[in-house]
Amino acid sequence: MDPLRVDEGRVLLLDQTLLPEREVWVEASDAGTMAEAIARLRVRGAPAIGIGAALALAAEAARGGSLADRRERLRRAATTLRASRPTAVNLAWACDRVLAAADRAAGSAAVGEPEAWAELVRREAMAIWDEDRAASSAMAEHGASLFPRETRFLTHCNTGGLATGGGGTALGVILELHRRGDRHVRVWATETRPLLQGARLTAWELLRAGVDARLISDGAAAFTIARRGIEAVLVGADRIARNGDVANKIGTYALALAARAAGIPFVVVAPTSTLDPAAADGGAIPVEERDPSEVTTFRGVPTAPEGTRAENPAFDITPAALVTALITERGVHSPPGRAFADVDSRS
Amino acid sequence: MDPLRVDEGRVLLLDQTLLPEREVWVEASDAGTMAEAIARLRVRGAPAIGIGAALALAAEAARGGSLADRRERLRRAATTLRASRPTAVNLAWACDRVLAAADRAAGSAAVGEPEAWAELVRREAMAIWDEDRAASSAMAEHGASLFPRETRFLTHCNTGGLATGGGGTALGVILELHRRGDRHVRVWATETRPLLQGARLTAWELLRAGVDARLISDGAAAFTIARRGIEAVLVGADRIARNGDVANKIGTYALALAARAAGIPFVVVAPTSTLDPAAADGGAIPVEERDPSEVTTFRGVPTAPEGTRAENPAFDITPAALVTALITERGVHSPPGRAFADVDSRS
Repeated sequence: MDPLRVDEGRVLLLDQTLLPEREVWVEASDAGTMAEAIARLRVRGAPAIGIGAALALAAEAARGGSLADRRERLRRAATTLRASRPTAVNLAWACDRVLAAADRAAGSAAVGEPEAWAELVRREAMAIWDEDRAASSAMAEHGASLFPRETRFLTHCNTGGLATGGGGTALGVILELHRRGDRHVRVWATETRPLLQGARLTAWELLRAGVDARLISDGAAAFTIARRGIEAVLVGADRIARNGDVANKIGTYALALAARAAGIPFVVVAPTSTLDPAAADGGAIPVEERDPSEVTTFRGVPTAPEGTRAENPAFDITPAALVTALITERGVHSPPGRAFADVDSRS
Repeated sequence: MDPLRVDEGRVLLLDQTLLPEREVWVEASDAGTMAEAIARLRVRGAPAIGIGAALALAAEAARGGSLADRRERLRRAATTLRASRPTAVNLAWACDRVLAAADRAAGSAAVGEPEAWAELVRREAMAIWDEDRAASSAMAEHGASLFPRETRFLTHCNTGGLATGGGGTALGVILELHRRGDRHVRVWATETRPLLQGARLTAWELLRAGVDARLISDGAAAFTIARRGIEAVLVGADRIARNGDVANKIGTYALALAARAAGIPFVVVAPTSTLDPAAADGGAIPVEERDPSEVTTFRGVPTAPEGTRAENPAFDITPAALVTALITERGVHSPPGRAFADVDSRS
């Protein structure tokens, strides 16, 4: 389940706002269209929006013009893409990485031609994508080794193939356990209001994979953990601060509190591209405020009387103290802030 | 805001499933229609469904027939009504109380005529309603004395006039503070999936009263408590066990955990009709499981792919240890289990 595709230089994305009813692929080969697709959540999930931005930058680099023109266009494109959503650090990270590769390529004596330069930019974007797929596989392996196959999980939002370059983070671990065998893994998935990524996307991925799953309302999670004997809560992340605080989809913090109350592990699964060494703690992470109308409507149907004011933070911050472990492609880090030292010592 | 009305012996209820778009009053003067209205949440809220059942019983008593026929009909009607929803103890309590009054009236030498008997049954139903209105006023007074007028509250589901005989429990306290004056009380209300009583009903009552209010998704509550400096969480209850465990709308337990984490009071507001001396603790309280389609749809709009399985517990159990205080019409009880002794010692 891959939310992005490249076809003869055209960048295509599966419009996730239309799932599960319709599977529609749309083109987003320029930065403006991709930024709009990211802002409207046509493509979403921290790793996936980083990859989407990188692919759009590669397409911008490939369009005609002198090397100087292309480099200027690439810088403007990166600024546009970076501004499309503020919380997931993977987006800025991917833009920075493509720009740095473009600068290196332009400085190289071997690269005189704009097309050769664009090809090196394209390779960097593809490398980001390939590495994310590899990271998903590694995280699935690390995670699957932590839990018996018959574990009862609770998960939030969508962290499957649709949220990444094709593998998944938290849901990737669950799907790996399912693939390994005896199909006794069970999942309770929260619907994840306001935009219902759990109901629309996670339920869809779980159904396709044949996993034994149940959908619940977000408010039912704490009680479900208690009464269904949930053994672990697995979530993704949009940004992880140096002290291990985790920004993730709104509702995550409440799940961490419920896991703590039940005495079960609360485990975050995210690639190292989600680590933000510049953020000392969760207070330094910008939390996106989305349109209040997402709360006062439900798939286009109004839910509240005309004139109702609403607040719509898209993410929350879970303190590191509530996070049992962080799984990245490098391994299992506990406490989560150790991931920074673990990555530094091995990179 | 009263969800019930009696007009020349006809029992009318405001169909809350149609709010806020339409204000439609429907007749439910027989037990079957009232039981269906309770099961479908046309009338809802623990105190309100007790009053609705009592009024339907009075209407059943008033219909023709011999005293023996009427008494038999009343017993069957009470059985039907009691079975309509399992968790709120107010429903069984109100049915029992009307039946006991009917038995006393039948045993009295002064009551030879069925009409006179029916009048005594009617008076008991009206007494239940009147007492609930008085309880709402008393709870509002007790609650308002606990908090400064500028308090920032978070509340869940609907606990206003629509949920009671006209006053309100948790929302009644907030509305009382607002009425008292300087309009600095602020409220964050959860939408309360799956049936959105917060978005549809609480937002409607708050708008009509002119209270400074914001609607949030259920998952946003824990983060909102932290970032908005919420000073108290106020909720209602559907049944309170002898040890102080509280059954209330699904999502309540998560709010109690979030209040504990933030170090703010978690206060339950409910009349003594919600106390269940027969339940030793929360484990003895039956939790209603509603149709999973309430989770996989909203107002006919599907939210999840065809074939998705869902679970839909309508209530959860909050352990007494997380409840800072219980406010009844008798006063403020802390810890909440003390309410039983407080009521016994004064009744």
